Amino acid sequence: MADVTIIGAGNMARGIGSRVVAADRSLEILTRDASKAEALAAELGGAVSGAALDQKVSGKIVVLALPFDAAQEVVKSLGSALDGKIVIDISNPVNFETFNSLTVPAGTSAAEELARLAPNATFVKAFNTVFAGNLASGKINGQPLDVFIAADSAEARSAVVSLVNDADMRAIEVGGLHHARELEGFQLLHMALQVNPAYENFQWGSAIQIAG
Amino acid sequence: MADVTIIGAGNMARGIGSRVVAADRSLEILTRDASKAEALAAELGGAVSGAALDQKVSGKIVVLALPFDAAQEVVKSLGSALDGKIVIDISNPVNFETFNSLTVPAGTSAAEELARLAPNATFVKAFNTVFAGNLASGKINGQPLDVFIAADSAEARSAVVSLVNDADMRAIEVGGLHHARELEGFQLLHMALQVNPAYENFQWGSAIQIAG
Repeated sequence: MADVTIIGAGNMARGIGSRVVAADRSLEILTRDASKAEALAAELGGAVSGAALDQKVSGKIVVLALPFDAAQEVVKSLGSALDGKIVIDISNPVNFETFNSLTVPAGTSAAEELARLAPNATFVKAFNTVFAGNLASGKINGQPLDVFIAADSAEARSAVVSLVNDADMRAIEVGGLHHARELEGFQLLHMALQVNPAYENFQWGSAIQIAG
Repeated sequence: MADVTIIGAGNMARGIGSRVVAADRSLEILTRDASKAEALAAELGGAVSGAALDQKVSGKIVVLALPFDAAQEVVKSLGSALDGKIVIDISNPVNFETFNSLTVPAGTSAAEELARLAPNATFVKAFNTVFAGNLASGKINGQPLDVFIAADSAEARSAVVSLVNDADMRAIEVGGLHHARELEGFQLLHMALQVNPAYENFQWGSAIQIAG
């Protein structure tokens, strides 16, 4: 049993994993290839285990640290294993060829599309506006990273707010899950800046912050 | 003749006007009630004039410092007086009863709707994510305010980028006018935080900044 399960072992899994450890939560990493999960677990240290992704998901909070397409597949394959869980979608459904549009239709979002696939899970949009590199410290220019959180369930929002704040970042609740669209849309613009030569100092290391 | 025309004499007109003066551009303020334009012009000092809004708009750049509804009316009433102008839309089509949704349909934006009303003008979305109070200095916590700019015309974007940078803020170009949707959507979330008791320290004085 772990407090939090992260599915995935890429850069975002590493970054969020390091914050979960900083927040003193026990953590389980699951991937299709168990060796990758085990390697990341060992790297993160603390109360972290790694295992193969099957139908057993122990965390009350489950982070899909995956691109949108992979997240869809995993949610479908897990089926009822996600029932009753708080599932965090971090994905950005960006057209990565052009960085000029989202791949979901107007009026919806990756988070809402994923939520439809697992109606007995409680979905939360979070972490989609932060880059992996900044999660190691949870800070940008010495300030806590802002982590925007959208969910219909106040209880689920509150659980993720606690996790984020305990990990020395600043949780910002923006309301219902339909606001995932606005979070994904603004991150599209933020990502596009990273590949725009006019803003070459950003280099996937910038952050969207509410200053003041 | 003025470099820039601002239509409106409210808080955003005052804030943007002070930045136009800081950028050393000549400025004309136009309002239906000439006395309000004259009063704001006198307050701003510098090369600023105020007059009644009729069909004469002298600035090459025209800032609609108005709420979305009023901006629609003004654009319709000006008709061909806006032909050839660079028109900056700063509005946020927010449901101000709920702060939970935009009043334009999914897939469009205030800027795109206004642009349809004046097909011979070149529309630019800018300044919609900044609050009036921060424009007096153009800074937040000692850092230049980020001003996000969307427009289809590279020439128009470039003119607004120069104005913003000359006014000691930081222009951030986010691409075509269709990205106004993302700017308006994220500002919806930012405005909602101002009326959320959990974030009572913001008080309409915060700013969306790209840190790093």
